[in-house]
Amino acid sequence: MLLRMSTTLLRTLREDPADAEVPSHRLLLRAGYIRRAAPGGYTWLPLGRMVLDRVTEIVRAEMTAIGDQEVHFPALLPAEPYRTSGRWTEYGDDIFTLADRRGAEHLLAPTHEELAALLVKDLFSSYRDFPVTLFQVQTKFRDEARPRAGLLRGREFLMKDAYSFDLDEAGLRAAYDRHRDAYRRIFDRLGLDYTVVHAMSGAMGGSASEEFLAATPVGEDTYVGCTGCDYAANTEAVTTPAPPAGDPQAPPVAEVHDTPETPTIASLVALANERRLAGRDDWTAADTLKNVVLTVRRPGVEAAELLVVGVPGDREVDLKRLAAALAPATVDVFDAWDEHPELVRGYIGPQVFDKLAVRYLVDPRIVPGTAWLTGANESGRHATNVVCGRDFTPDGTVEAAEVRPGDPCPACATGRLTMRRGIEIGHIFQLGRRYTDAFAVDVLGPQGKPVRPTMGCYGIGVSRAVAAIAEQHHDERGLVWPESVAPCDVHLVAAGKGPQLDAALDLGARLAAAGLRVLVDDRAGVSAGVKFTDAELIGIPRTVVVGRRLADGYVELRDRATGERSELLFETVAERLLGTVGRNVV
Amino acid sequence: MLLRMSTTLLRTLREDPADAEVPSHRLLLRAGYIRRAAPGGYTWLPLGRMVLDRVTEIVRAEMTAIGDQEVHFPALLPAEPYRTSGRWTEYGDDIFTLADRRGAEHLLAPTHEELAALLVKDLFSSYRDFPVTLFQVQTKFRDEARPRAGLLRGREFLMKDAYSFDLDEAGLRAAYDRHRDAYRRIFDRLGLDYTVVHAMSGAMGGSASEEFLAATPVGEDTYVGCTGCDYAANTEAVTTPAPPAGDPQAPPVAEVHDTPETPTIASLVALANERRLAGRDDWTAADTLKNVVLTVRRPGVEAAELLVVGVPGDREVDLKRLAAALAPATVDVFDAWDEHPELVRGYIGPQVFDKLAVRYLVDPRIVPGTAWLTGANESGRHATNVVCGRDFTPDGTVEAAEVRPGDPCPACATGRLTMRRGIEIGHIFQLGRRYTDAFAVDVLGPQGKPVRPTMGCYGIGVSRAVAAIAEQHHDERGLVWPESVAPCDVHLVAAGKGPQLDAALDLGARLAAAGLRVLVDDRAGVSAGVKFTDAELIGIPRTVVVGRRLADGYVELRDRATGERSELLFETVAERLLGTVGRNVV
Repeated sequence: MLLRMSTTLLRTLREDPADAEVPSHRLLLRAGYIRRAAPGGYTWLPLGRMVLDRVTEIVRAEMTAIGDQEVHFPALLPAEPYRTSGRWTEYGDDIFTLADRRGAEHLLAPTHEELAALLVKDLFSSYRDFPVTLFQVQTKFRDEARPRAGLLRGREFLMKDAYSFDLDEAGLRAAYDRHRDAYRRIFDRLGLDYTVVHAMSGAMGGSASEEFLAATPVGEDTYVGCTGCDYAANTEAVTTPAPPAGDPQAPPVAEVHDTPETPTIASLVALANERRLAGRDDWTAADTLKNVVLTVRRPGVEAAELLVVGVPGDREVDLKRLAAALAPATVDVFDAWDEHPELVRGYIGPQVFDKLAVRYLVDPRIVPGTAWLTGANESGRHATNVVCGRDFTPDGTVEAAEVRPGDPCPACATGRLTMRRGIEIGHIFQLGRRYTDAFAVDVLGPQGKPVRPTMGCYGIGVSRAVAAIAEQHHDERGLVWPESVAPCDVHLVAAGKGPQLDAALDLGARLAAAGLRVLVDDRAGVSAGVKFTDAELIGIPRTVVVGRRLADGYVELRDRATGERSELLFETVAERLLGTVGRNVV
Repeated sequence: MLLRMSTTLLRTLREDPADAEVPSHRLLLRAGYIRRAAPGGYTWLPLGRMVLDRVTEIVRAEMTAIGDQEVHFPALLPAEPYRTSGRWTEYGDDIFTLADRRGAEHLLAPTHEELAALLVKDLFSSYRDFPVTLFQVQTKFRDEARPRAGLLRGREFLMKDAYSFDLDEAGLRAAYDRHRDAYRRIFDRLGLDYTVVHAMSGAMGGSASEEFLAATPVGEDTYVGCTGCDYAANTEAVTTPAPPAGDPQAPPVAEVHDTPETPTIASLVALANERRLAGRDDWTAADTLKNVVLTVRRPGVEAAELLVVGVPGDREVDLKRLAAALAPATVDVFDAWDEHPELVRGYIGPQVFDKLAVRYLVDPRIVPGTAWLTGANESGRHATNVVCGRDFTPDGTVEAAEVRPGDPCPACATGRLTMRRGIEIGHIFQLGRRYTDAFAVDVLGPQGKPVRPTMGCYGIGVSRAVAAIAEQHHDERGLVWPESVAPCDVHLVAAGKGPQLDAALDLGARLAAAGLRVLVDDRAGVSAGVKFTDAELIGIPRTVVVGRRLADGYVELRDRATGERSELLFETVAERLLGTVGRNVV
């Protein structure tokens, strides 16, 4: 393949576009890979399409290699199956919905668990047909509230989604592991630096789930690592190690104190030390039990539920973690104090929840036998030695407290958590039977009894991966594509016209004939300096400069990643390039 | 590539699906290529995807070969550019529209003239950048009133759309011809029997336009050929040769006759001959002038316009031809006779239209000097010798009369038209400046003055082409794919298990290693007879049967298209297949 810059739909920009905040967005625009066409919608220009195609082919090859079969579902679907599964309401505003000319409701499907389950139900009838995994590469649409960061969070994007069907848990685990391994191979081939983190299943349903996060400071996903082991988790999925439970009867009896003007944890701790409550002057926020009142709304349910979450007073409630723990649900801070006079703002203690019809969930650190300084449910009063398991009994625990750097690792004894940022490029789920239950997918089992298959689903953001690669592979001068996904193998710069241009075109033709992807900068009226700047911006791994030294028989070979330059005889450069790039030629 | 039928997502059906009327729909469903997933929406199963991929690759290769550059526009777009071009209203119910979470109106773009023009305006500023042609292969959505015939008329389909930009008419004509030639190569490679017909531009706007129609009895497009030359045209685009005009003053003066109870042409002709009107007894319907009253609605215009169309009385008005001639517009038969007492139903003559505010268009046969028997605008009365150019003056001519087999060819002197049916698989347009005008796309010309580029657009129904191939390549036993698009090159049938199965798998592995696409029927518990039936249904060009004769060292090679069978030594069959299929291996 030989592209001539003089005729290629490719315009580089000298200036950073005003609305492009992150490096991938800025550079993909400036180097002429993409162009904004709509809010959250981009046109892929020829060079961009080539990168997208190469990424797609790597994804497709690795999926096929593990036996996944490629299909293609419609993107526009009637609401019905999504109502049956419950996702029509769960996704809410995040999906695009529309009515056809007859008024029938449709959606642009976010993913296709429903269709995959229906297809398997339609085609398969016996255990002998399993396991099977389908995948597709498809344009997806999502009604992002705030499309941003170019390809990283758009409203239209390319995705690979796969669906596995197995007869038992062991099969599902094997399929899950097979995809986990294939994903590692894919992201390795794409040149991505990534971490596999434990994740929440969210609106997908199901049990185990991991995200593949490409590390970058501009990532919108926060995740944690461990200083002592290889534990990694999405912040929503971090679990809190519980301390050992104690004897709830052991602590002294609870005692109520006057604590005027202490509606905040800080004011309470100050007063508790000042007045030496329970004979102590070493009170800290961690000794207090903060009770946060929230409202929870579930999809399709009109009425909001009241929920109180108890956390140690030195931590805030992380609403994103709480929402993930309660998914599918939206969570808001409670503010209708007038309607609930039994909840004394700033002085709420858990002692009353048994009597009130309020759900009370606590942080896992609040185990039976722990004693707390907390509200006494009267204005200006708190109680000491309020003991979990004696003075109150929570309805359960919940991961709602904020995660902080330095928190103990839930996976190892000694490690401490660190906070990182990344871009979600893949997500794998052990779904279980949520969708096969919804559509009653049963097949004849080996003993003649029906068996209900269990599902996994596996997604890769293909267009987002292009942006993630750009985030990780650039410098201040431009993009630095890995060989595996670069739009071309070699960028030939004809520094001048006449013999230099002829030689560059001749070399380009020979390399293209040998199977290399070649971009030749044959533009007339563009200075050599501008051509060099553009070559660095565009980021093809190797540049050959055909310049003045051609008169002596030499050209210059530049390596975009290392910056190395070497002078080579023009006669030998084709051989050298074919030797170096040869392994990438299909 | 080696596919094993035992694990491939492929179920053949013995019975014709109830709702599948046309052969391609029936066979693609029965042979396991597609599966219905929504009204007008199909899931492509693995074998179907392979055919679709091969067709796509042929299209893409030929477009690239003529220098078209591949891009990818968003499918979901804001209404704005389509309002600017006027297509938002012109397409009406045929496009899917939706509002995003902020209520902003969007559409699923039918084609991308608007975006292509805006992209060129955005990136190009000089005449030196031209000519340029962009193309994409994209899933399109159209809100078909009656999705039918499987892939032939669905609501979601794959399309290749290309957009050329040239600085002058000669450039546009060259681009148009280049695409016409590329389309011929594409459809030839796809094994399609097709005709290039003159067509109307419809909602696209622009001037010249041709359709590529694949001939098939189930096609929903009617087109005409000629017995004497290679003229071919969509029925809408057929032009009517006008007879020579005569002297309007030459015929005798018009005369009004009592013609009671003759509201139809047949009753009028019978009475005219019976009463020897104007001294003649050889009146035929072709001597009468029928005036048909219609209402015309234009997109975005509330009020309907009244239109009268005059045609020779032996022909009906073809509303589809008329709508195409008036495009963009919808045409309905007038029925509000009460509101227009000046129009005397059954007895309308053109003599009054000069006085009434009614637009009157006539068939091209109605030239000045022709004399007609027509209504006298009084109930029960007609007039003879009503002469065009003397007694009435039409506002213009229109191609509204039905086209009939045997009509004279507009292209040659002697030929007669014949009627045929086909499927539209491609359409090319010389658009002109409709879209560059709409978006004021101007670039600097060679003399320093701005130049406005002129556009062409070129579409291929990629998924529809798959169905068209199936329509033309099947027999009563199943599909008969051309080699260029078959999902596999060879279908190996292991007639029995043990050594036969082993030999089939071994042969399959060797052929796949040599680059062939191979499907092996390795299913256990399926009879040889069922395997043979399925092989014929699936329609791969060659089948190798590994059966009982393997014990003597022989296998059977079957050619799906010719039905030929030959017995070959197992040892030589791989060599034979590689020799035959070799030229198709990538």
